[in-house]
Amino acid sequence: MKEPLRIGLAGLGTVGGGVVEILDRHRELLAARCGRPLVLAGVSARHRDRHRKLKIGKAEWYDNPVKMATDPGIDVVVEVIGGEDGIAKKIAETALQSGKSLVTANKALIAHHGTRLARMAEKNGVALRFEAAVAGGVPIIKSLREGLVANQLVEVYGILNGTCNYILTQMEMTGRDFNDVLAEAQELGYAEADPSFDIDGIDTAHKLAILASVSFGVEVNFAGVHIEGLRHISAEDIAYAHELGYRIKLLGITRFGAEGIEQRVHPCMVEIDTPVAHVEGAFNAIVAQGDAVERTVFEGPGAGRGPTASAVVADIVDIGRGDLSPAFSVPAKSLKPCETYPMAERRGANYVRLLVVDEPGVIAKVAAALRDANVSIESIIQRGQAEGDLVSMVMITHEAREGNMIQALEKIGRLKTVVEPPTMIRIVTF
Amino acid sequence: MKEPLRIGLAGLGTVGGGVVEILDRHRELLAARCGRPLVLAGVSARHRDRHRKLKIGKAEWYDNPVKMATDPGIDVVVEVIGGEDGIAKKIAETALQSGKSLVTANKALIAHHGTRLARMAEKNGVALRFEAAVAGGVPIIKSLREGLVANQLVEVYGILNGTCNYILTQMEMTGRDFNDVLAEAQELGYAEADPSFDIDGIDTAHKLAILASVSFGVEVNFAGVHIEGLRHISAEDIAYAHELGYRIKLLGITRFGAEGIEQRVHPCMVEIDTPVAHVEGAFNAIVAQGDAVERTVFEGPGAGRGPTASAVVADIVDIGRGDLSPAFSVPAKSLKPCETYPMAERRGANYVRLLVVDEPGVIAKVAAALRDANVSIESIIQRGQAEGDLVSMVMITHEAREGNMIQALEKIGRLKTVVEPPTMIRIVTF
Repeated sequence: MKEPLRIGLAGLGTVGGGVVEILDRHRELLAARCGRPLVLAGVSARHRDRHRKLKIGKAEWYDNPVKMATDPGIDVVVEVIGGEDGIAKKIAETALQSGKSLVTANKALIAHHGTRLARMAEKNGVALRFEAAVAGGVPIIKSLREGLVANQLVEVYGILNGTCNYILTQMEMTGRDFNDVLAEAQELGYAEADPSFDIDGIDTAHKLAILASVSFGVEVNFAGVHIEGLRHISAEDIAYAHELGYRIKLLGITRFGAEGIEQRVHPCMVEIDTPVAHVEGAFNAIVAQGDAVERTVFEGPGAGRGPTASAVVADIVDIGRGDLSPAFSVPAKSLKPCETYPMAERRGANYVRLLVVDEPGVIAKVAAALRDANVSIESIIQRGQAEGDLVSMVMITHEAREGNMIQALEKIGRLKTVVEPPTMIRIVTF
Repeated sequence: MKEPLRIGLAGLGTVGGGVVEILDRHRELLAARCGRPLVLAGVSARHRDRHRKLKIGKAEWYDNPVKMATDPGIDVVVEVIGGEDGIAKKIAETALQSGKSLVTANKALIAHHGTRLARMAEKNGVALRFEAAVAGGVPIIKSLREGLVANQLVEVYGILNGTCNYILTQMEMTGRDFNDVLAEAQELGYAEADPSFDIDGIDTAHKLAILASVSFGVEVNFAGVHIEGLRHISAEDIAYAHELGYRIKLLGITRFGAEGIEQRVHPCMVEIDTPVAHVEGAFNAIVAQGDAVERTVFEGPGAGRGPTASAVVADIVDIGRGDLSPAFSVPAKSLKPCETYPMAERRGANYVRLLVVDEPGVIAKVAAALRDANVSIESIIQRGQAEGDLVSMVMITHEAREGNMIQALEKIGRLKTVVEPPTMIRIVTF
């Protein structure tokens, strides 16, 4: 058996603690599978005394994780602190520049600095791995990078944020409104005190930008992701979706096309028999469509101590086995710029809900605005109320250019009889 | 860029043709991803003139694939001929003994000779890979072996045969009987002229034995798989399953336990919200439960030219990247004997359907036989007919020991009022 692989672990929170547990519990199994022992040689965290229960064995304690990242006694640095800049970035750069492989669970870091870090890794002849950054325990990065390596991938999409999917599932099951369900999710610990990263779609966008890069061999382009969150989805939208045979899911979608790469995160109405429609609660699911393999689906827990640590340790084992292949499937120097397809050029059907004063001529005005933008209506639901009351008007459009759709909605939003900003949810067929 | 990887391809049928296509279409992409060119250096098939349309470039033609497997001009041999013995086995052994890595799509070969071939590969310092042998394009072997490497896997199960799942889905959708649907599937090319490998569960068992070995680090033990096929499933069973809130799926199930490894293939009644319940048509799906990752699900096309070739080429790329890690996740010499848990010791609920003469006392006799074997009945459905007519009696048992259940059914089968052998379908909860 070869020399031990000496691990330096930066961060002993939920994920770091999980990594320590797995390394301890499966010591022999991992050595057999990796072909060499995995040794926790160093650890670093903010508060030394908080982690007395973790079995860190003979690992050296570092007050300064950046110092650990330069230590010749460490072969691979594991960064599970988080945050796109600050200490996490410093650790990552220092490790790679010191000739150590880096494993990270940090999606923000990779979404913002992935290309540069991959180039740094290759220059120094070490590996950069981030399986845990996307979809927790699901080995989706490995599956795209290696399992589907023979394919030109054409489309990758999925449910990438468990908090959002939990909220949508709860709204669907209980009929309650967004804010109500969010407050409960926060109490139960399913949503953060500041939930904006999750519910505004930023977390999903981090993961999507990483998936696009791995799938299509392009630079990570987080800035090029069109992002919309969940806050505007109401119980009424959920009910209409159900009535119309759809479910609402917050999806990240990336597609490879001649005119550029689509990268978008937004709530979608998906047909009930789409593979992601049945994914409930905090689960994640990713669908990858390749030119040879056709449609594959990967599903599992997208977060949590065990699943995330499972992915981190898998990366460590790969490095222990000597895998130095490129982080984003082709050498970082060959990654092409990620030229994104403008959202305004998207063509698709849409669900639109308006709150209108129920008076003569309102449908005519709305229909005229759509007609002027060259958007045609497939169906319309407006249930009668007493004249002069507020009433919801729901429409499904035929496939239309998104730029035209937005233009029409702006005009409609300015109508006096339309009393709140229109809600639009894209209907996505796969 | 490193030296080209020189491939010798044995077999130019559906899968072999797909491999040639991918190597040609994605020549540059694969070279970038693999870090070296993949060159088709040799091909061999039974009829040279049948394959004129394939772009085999400058590949040398071998009338004898075994000779190709010894040629110093070949680095990796790809066997896509099939069959557990005969020429496929000869090619595999010759390649490994000649110091060449082997990629195969041949589940029968690996199910019967996998352990020995893996030992041969390790002895010769080369790789043995068989991603395409299980679930076609779904990278399940890689996911278990590498993606979930940090886990003690506890249970792996799934739909592993597209033909069976297609037949069951058709029976469910149309209400038609097994033989009727099978005949149509044969006409449409979804089932072979001799369908027994598929519908008798042998193909699923091949794949299951491979999954068990990769998942649990045990020798491949095909002989230790309990196998039951589909032939006894009737339209009536499908209808009752629906009525009772179940679906019938032919599953391969393997579990790791203190008392041995369960390996079984049989029709199962699964609850409608089980991840595999919604998998329709020729799709495959595998669920893997690990001690850290919890439940992960992998789904995709289990057969066909593109998907299978996608898996074969992924194996080639891994080998090109220098991956020599053990075929079954731990070194072949460390694989433990696969001691199987006896089926008679299984504890579970069961669906039982009897065709009985509707006369006084029949329920009493059946109930007594079950009571004597210590099996208790949870529910019973018998719809009244004119006395003396034949009628179906359907029962759901409480959890019972399988050995006792079989004993009771033998006794029940001998009753004069029971006019055909009892049908039993295991109810499986996950």
